[in-house]
Amino acid sequence: MIPYQLIAKKRDGGELTAAEIEQLIAAYLTGGFTDEQMAAFLMAVFLQGMTTAETAALTRSMTASGDVWDLSSVPQPTIDKHSTGGVGDKVSLVLAPWVAACGVAVPMMSGRGLGHTGGTLDKLAAIPGFSTSLTKKRTISQLKKIGVAMLAATENIAPADRRMYALRDATGTVESVPLITASILSKKIAEGADGFVFDVKYGSGAFMPEIRRAKALAESLVKTAIKSGKKAVALLTAMDQPTGCAAGNVCEVREAIDCLRLKKPEDLYQITKTLAVEMLMLAGSFRSRTAAAAQLEQAIDSGAALEKFRRLIQAQGGDPRVVDNPELSPQAAHHNEIKAPRSGYLQKIDTRRIGWALVELGVGRKKPDDDIDISAGLLLSKKIGDRVAEGESVGTIMGRSRRTFALVAREVAASLSIGATRTRPQKLIHSRFDGRWIPL
Amino acid sequence: MIPYQLIAKKRDGGELTAAEIEQLIAAYLTGGFTDEQMAAFLMAVFLQGMTTAETAALTRSMTASGDVWDLSSVPQPTIDKHSTGGVGDKVSLVLAPWVAACGVAVPMMSGRGLGHTGGTLDKLAAIPGFSTSLTKKRTISQLKKIGVAMLAATENIAPADRRMYALRDATGTVESVPLITASILSKKIAEGADGFVFDVKYGSGAFMPEIRRAKALAESLVKTAIKSGKKAVALLTAMDQPTGCAAGNVCEVREAIDCLRLKKPEDLYQITKTLAVEMLMLAGSFRSRTAAAAQLEQAIDSGAALEKFRRLIQAQGGDPRVVDNPELSPQAAHHNEIKAPRSGYLQKIDTRRIGWALVELGVGRKKPDDDIDISAGLLLSKKIGDRVAEGESVGTIMGRSRRTFALVAREVAASLSIGATRTRPQKLIHSRFDGRWIPL
Repeated sequence: MIPYQLIAKKRDGGELTAAEIEQLIAAYLTGGFTDEQMAAFLMAVFLQGMTTAETAALTRSMTASGDVWDLSSVPQPTIDKHSTGGVGDKVSLVLAPWVAACGVAVPMMSGRGLGHTGGTLDKLAAIPGFSTSLTKKRTISQLKKIGVAMLAATENIAPADRRMYALRDATGTVESVPLITASILSKKIAEGADGFVFDVKYGSGAFMPEIRRAKALAESLVKTAIKSGKKAVALLTAMDQPTGCAAGNVCEVREAIDCLRLKKPEDLYQITKTLAVEMLMLAGSFRSRTAAAAQLEQAIDSGAALEKFRRLIQAQGGDPRVVDNPELSPQAAHHNEIKAPRSGYLQKIDTRRIGWALVELGVGRKKPDDDIDISAGLLLSKKIGDRVAEGESVGTIMGRSRRTFALVAREVAASLSIGATRTRPQKLIHSRFDGRWIPL
Repeated sequence: MIPYQLIAKKRDGGELTAAEIEQLIAAYLTGGFTDEQMAAFLMAVFLQGMTTAETAALTRSMTASGDVWDLSSVPQPTIDKHSTGGVGDKVSLVLAPWVAACGVAVPMMSGRGLGHTGGTLDKLAAIPGFSTSLTKKRTISQLKKIGVAMLAATENIAPADRRMYALRDATGTVESVPLITASILSKKIAEGADGFVFDVKYGSGAFMPEIRRAKALAESLVKTAIKSGKKAVALLTAMDQPTGCAAGNVCEVREAIDCLRLKKPEDLYQITKTLAVEMLMLAGSFRSRTAAAAQLEQAIDSGAALEKFRRLIQAQGGDPRVVDNPELSPQAAHHNEIKAPRSGYLQKIDTRRIGWALVELGVGRKKPDDDIDISAGLLLSKKIGDRVAEGESVGTIMGRSRRTFALVAREVAASLSIGATRTRPQKLIHSRFDGRWIPL
């Protein structure tokens, strides 16, 4: 293989063979294809695209760069969910135990917060004692026992992706549909589940706000996963405002527990239930979505879902009493109300801006080794379409220090568009893609 | 400056401001813009292009990365020529003393052979004692005294280009018109001449064989040079076969001396004279091309051009007796005839393939630190359109060792298309661009 020729082939719009992509990634891992060459190649992919066959080959090569877990000894079907992320997206915390309570195993590898979006690992850190460092052996044993595990990807899961992601981040090649697809899928496939439900967000707080681009990503994820021998389906769901009311680690865990107990807040409940139905259907556990939905309702009403969450916490070294006594999580020392600057309807939210404001508050990181404030967060009490009165509280920010409160309050207030006419939020669950688009 | 944003702007087809390009190159030289980021940026430029304003700003920043020579103390106008290169292209050796003999100073910085194309520095090394390492001071003093200097670019001329060229070579981003333009011009402008004539080659041995792409490069070179405050004109000349008969270092010097004495071979003489006329016109030394051409003829007929070459050799430490006694240059130990494999007309030559065969013979280098065989070369006795008989000699290869003779003879013979009908070579001097195209 001559690295130059493979770069030039993609540069000129050619389609690389699976063997060429395999050689390229193998050479990258052994130094025969340098970081500079990879940077040029990634830019060529960004601008020339990749076919589904190329994306699947890239995914396979990146998966093969590390450990590939074999979950075939788990007797239940294994299904995972991946979200493209957003603000207040605590869906995984509700979804994983809930689906597990319905007999499908959920091996969920998650990441830390990235940019303006939160991360499930950070949220789980709000549960005292909860460990997300699980070995393959322990994960399999836990899946057999309680049907759910929530863990961090180990160092050996798709190491090629880690190097390539750092390079993409530095070289302006992150927002490429085939590269995002291969990055997500290489890790998911290494994790070993039978199938995946992709929660692709659209709207102001989404990684890809435009519906057109979000749809392209959803299609690429599903087609590439299927080409890679996995079951897959994608849902397009709203991220024009934070999901639920809470955005922050401790407060999101609390809201997730509320949802498992009380089926609210409504938007979180609806999104999670729709994803859960798709997971159960992918697993082949139910004949119809209606039957799956009924079983899910029952799992909450009976307390089985919440109990599964308690057992998950216990299995991973956490304090399960936090489910009934949320004050066992670190509590914020300071709170501050955010007042509506004028009267009118909440018309629109710049959710990404809220996400970045929360990073300033300590909810997320600017640099990978930054400390976070697990107790920091925002409770937003208004939704798009709600009436607000000037001076009325629209939310609360909290944290262990007031240092950035003034800035964050200003940023959150500035993210809210208040006007005279009432507007409606985006469709909460827009459509489903399983090879073709079905409006929901 | 945030490197990511500049890369993304170009990636998305935006036009960078001069300030942005300046910041980018400055950051690259100080480590704030990494080689990986530059590789991605170069690929984005390759695929999205650059406007003339961007190319001029890039050129300016690359020039400013090192020394910029001020030749204003030289009383004569200073004009240089740059060729995009080819096989047997010894034009510079004839042109520089010839133009200098007509009163225009020629400060000619040249390079070594690159890929399949020869380099003027390698040819000059065939003159015993000739040194191409001149300081700025010595160059200026020589220009004042004899009006011509032929030298290698110093380490401090456009160092940004050296790093960027190595990166382009490794990452498939060499053949980009704006990047080629900035690479050539950044060095030429640093050299300090008032104006440049660009000899852009087209045909099978050229860097850009297709006339369409050669024209695009010619336009970019001229427009960017003019935008950079220099006088400039480009000629499109043929490289569908080696220029003259000789391709190799010692034999090309001998052919160049023949041309300065005897005005032949015809193609070399015509190309060089046309370029020389343009240099004299750019310098403003003559009212008309006819007057300039007459002066050039006279310089050869009077022996002034050849005498200028002797003085150039002497000024740079070489043995001027080589002009009258070519055997003072290293002579090849072995010669081998190449026979025509069949009878017919020489219809076409794969000149690039001949160039690469000559690299095998030792005329050029595969790697930058390879040794070359200064005595090695090819004398091709047939031109496109000539009749050849089966078994007749079509040329001679020579060198200090026979090691690669069989391979090279086979490659040269295979590069010649012999057929029943007579074909004509490409137009030797196709057209001129000085802001608009003029067919010649």
